[in-house]
Amino acid sequence: VATTPDFVTYPSDVAVADAVCHDRWVEVTWTDRRSSRFHHLWLRDNCPCPSCVAQITREQTFEILAVPAGLTPDAVERTRVGDLFVRWPDGHESIYDTGWLRDHVYDRADPHTRSSTRSTPRTSWDSSSFSAPPTFDATAVMTRDDALHDWLVALSTFGCTRVRGLPDDPDVVGELAARIGVVRHTNFGVLWDVKSEPDPITNANTSLRLPPHVDLPTREYQPGVQFLHCLVNDATGGDSVLVDGLRVAEIVKAESPAHFRTLTTVPWNWANRSRTSDYRWSSPLIVLDGHGEMSEIRVGNWLRAPLVDVGFDRVEEAYEAYRHLFEVTYRKDLVVQFRLVSGDCMVFDNRRVLHARTGFDPNSGPRFLRGCYSEREEVESRLRVLKRAGQDGSTHS
Amino acid sequence: VATTPDFVTYPSDVAVADAVCHDRWVEVTWTDRRSSRFHHLWLRDNCPCPSCVAQITREQTFEILAVPAGLTPDAVERTRVGDLFVRWPDGHESIYDTGWLRDHVYDRADPHTRSSTRSTPRTSWDSSSFSAPPTFDATAVMTRDDALHDWLVALSTFGCTRVRGLPDDPDVVGELAARIGVVRHTNFGVLWDVKSEPDPITNANTSLRLPPHVDLPTREYQPGVQFLHCLVNDATGGDSVLVDGLRVAEIVKAESPAHFRTLTTVPWNWANRSRTSDYRWSSPLIVLDGHGEMSEIRVGNWLRAPLVDVGFDRVEEAYEAYRHLFEVTYRKDLVVQFRLVSGDCMVFDNRRVLHARTGFDPNSGPRFLRGCYSEREEVESRLRVLKRAGQDGSTHS
Repeated sequence: VATTPDFVTYPSDVAVADAVCHDRWVEVTWTDRRSSRFHHLWLRDNCPCPSCVAQITREQTFEILAVPAGLTPDAVERTRVGDLFVRWPDGHESIYDTGWLRDHVYDRADPHTRSSTRSTPRTSWDSSSFSAPPTFDATAVMTRDDALHDWLVALSTFGCTRVRGLPDDPDVVGELAARIGVVRHTNFGVLWDVKSEPDPITNANTSLRLPPHVDLPTREYQPGVQFLHCLVNDATGGDSVLVDGLRVAEIVKAESPAHFRTLTTVPWNWANRSRTSDYRWSSPLIVLDGHGEMSEIRVGNWLRAPLVDVGFDRVEEAYEAYRHLFEVTYRKDLVVQFRLVSGDCMVFDNRRVLHARTGFDPNSGPRFLRGCYSEREEVESRLRVLKRAGQDGSTHS
Repeated sequence: VATTPDFVTYPSDVAVADAVCHDRWVEVTWTDRRSSRFHHLWLRDNCPCPSCVAQITREQTFEILAVPAGLTPDAVERTRVGDLFVRWPDGHESIYDTGWLRDHVYDRADPHTRSSTRSTPRTSWDSSSFSAPPTFDATAVMTRDDALHDWLVALSTFGCTRVRGLPDDPDVVGELAARIGVVRHTNFGVLWDVKSEPDPITNANTSLRLPPHVDLPTREYQPGVQFLHCLVNDATGGDSVLVDGLRVAEIVKAESPAHFRTLTTVPWNWANRSRTSDYRWSSPLIVLDGHGEMSEIRVGNWLRAPLVDVGFDRVEEAYEAYRHLFEVTYRKDLVVQFRLVSGDCMVFDNRRVLHARTGFDPNSGPRFLRGCYSEREEVESRLRVLKRAGQDGSTHS
């Protein structure tokens, strides 16, 4: 079997049946009678041989400028085991593993059906979907890869989860995050406290009610995953609230396409100022990806800066759309309200799901959460590696 | 003087001369005879009083849904000291500091002239601009705020700098980065080594020639600032190369608007795979900001994954444009090649400036660099705080 240029194997019931060289591409017919076209340069670029790919790092050393633009194979054929063989005019020979090649077919009617960076389809939710986030056992998640996998799939699908039964240790939230991957550092530190303080640098560290928001909308790259570990919650008030920003966006779009367009195009200003830092960013409240789907939402009432980047003529439109969006985040049929208890950790997609808390009375009892941030791509990377380890063919087409 | 809703003061020679309430906005005439319009909701939203803004955190507690959409002041007037006073129908009263208000005028012909997130205009460069990056003294940068300021302005302007004279300490690169702000953690660690290794997880840790690239194009958020501290460079070969990606983009655009369009619209696939991680992303090679200017470039030949997200019909166009871009990065009149010596640290905008190295002979002598990452917004935040400290009016309009 030919090598593949990554750490994944590609078991496949389907093999190359035939290969024909056309002017601009090679046409491969598979043993299941489907056929796929691969451009000459694409094939040359993806040669996995030891002189094109450093075998230890699996990183390419071949550079596309080493061959002419109009490169055409001298010969193409099916190997004895059903891989694709190509010989190039300079004598270079490439062999493409049949499973790898089948997995990388790009000759399809709708290329967008292939999502190469998001492993799990998202499902939007509201208050009728559940009364608390999908919940997972801390010990299982920390010790078993299948439990880790199931937790991360839920996180990817719904954007919110709860891990229950963590030990009473103020640093364990970092260990939970490290089970996925790298923890993000910010000016708030690696792990940070949420508690009422006399001299807070953020409204989070007061006893104030916090309206639905994401954390750090003031940064170009909002943290993709947020962890909030409840160490103690004995105060009166201080319930937790989650709202699915994906559902919020769907509703605003359905109720007013014009507002939705405004929300995706008018840049709002953001500022996170303290005595020692001054972060600012400018971004629409809803950002779409290349396929027109919501990539992220930015809502954080107290972190907005004066709206100055948009120009006079769109300011009223901007406020009208913002009011609509903000109003939807408060709707009873969208809000999931619940109470964190000691040992609970809320883990959610901070670029999709808004969180909030009801105000609390700091004199009625202690309330102390400890949190940290990570990124969506850490979740996706961990899921890919878990799938490699448990590779059973189910993850490959 | 009225309070301002942030930690900045706004000294101003200009004051409010008069204020008139119109249907949808307040028109302010200034003592320099200019006039500016402020929408009613914008003014209400930006009231800095203690019941609207938490005075310790300087973060807003007022929410825009607390007032009706068609809100109109009951009274507007100039205060005795030249601030703006507004009384609202519910009796709430707002006073806007005249310097703050003047600084936040958004009623201008071209709102895009106001760049709220980039402090310094960029200047593109080539090999005729300098023979090595603008160089700064390590001791000065580490100990004096004015030297820190000048270094960061150069970094922001040119996207590349060199700090010279760092001690022979493998951890000092982290201290240099911390002088700016938060250091970014990745799967490569906080500080990472660049040296030839027997079992590398990246081509960087071989003795191979590295073509011009950015680090981590495989991540959604490429690190904005890269630090490379040279501890020893006694090998034959291993020179450093920098190319301004901003200039590269300008040249490609001038030579072929069609290629430029392809580069800004066709998503390439990226992968950074190791035995324990598997990061992937999909993005055009050149990303534009909301004003149509280059926000970032993604070039890293050995970190590209097979092109699969774009669809069959655009693959040849994608390769043609990529070849053009890649060819430009090699042009002699763009490349600045120099040699790092012990104590040098290259600090550059990793989303703008490509770096490369010539191959070296690992048996000819040791070569050991140590690096870390930070973000553009850490630079901008530090610059804003430095300007606050040295506030002399020059940073305000």
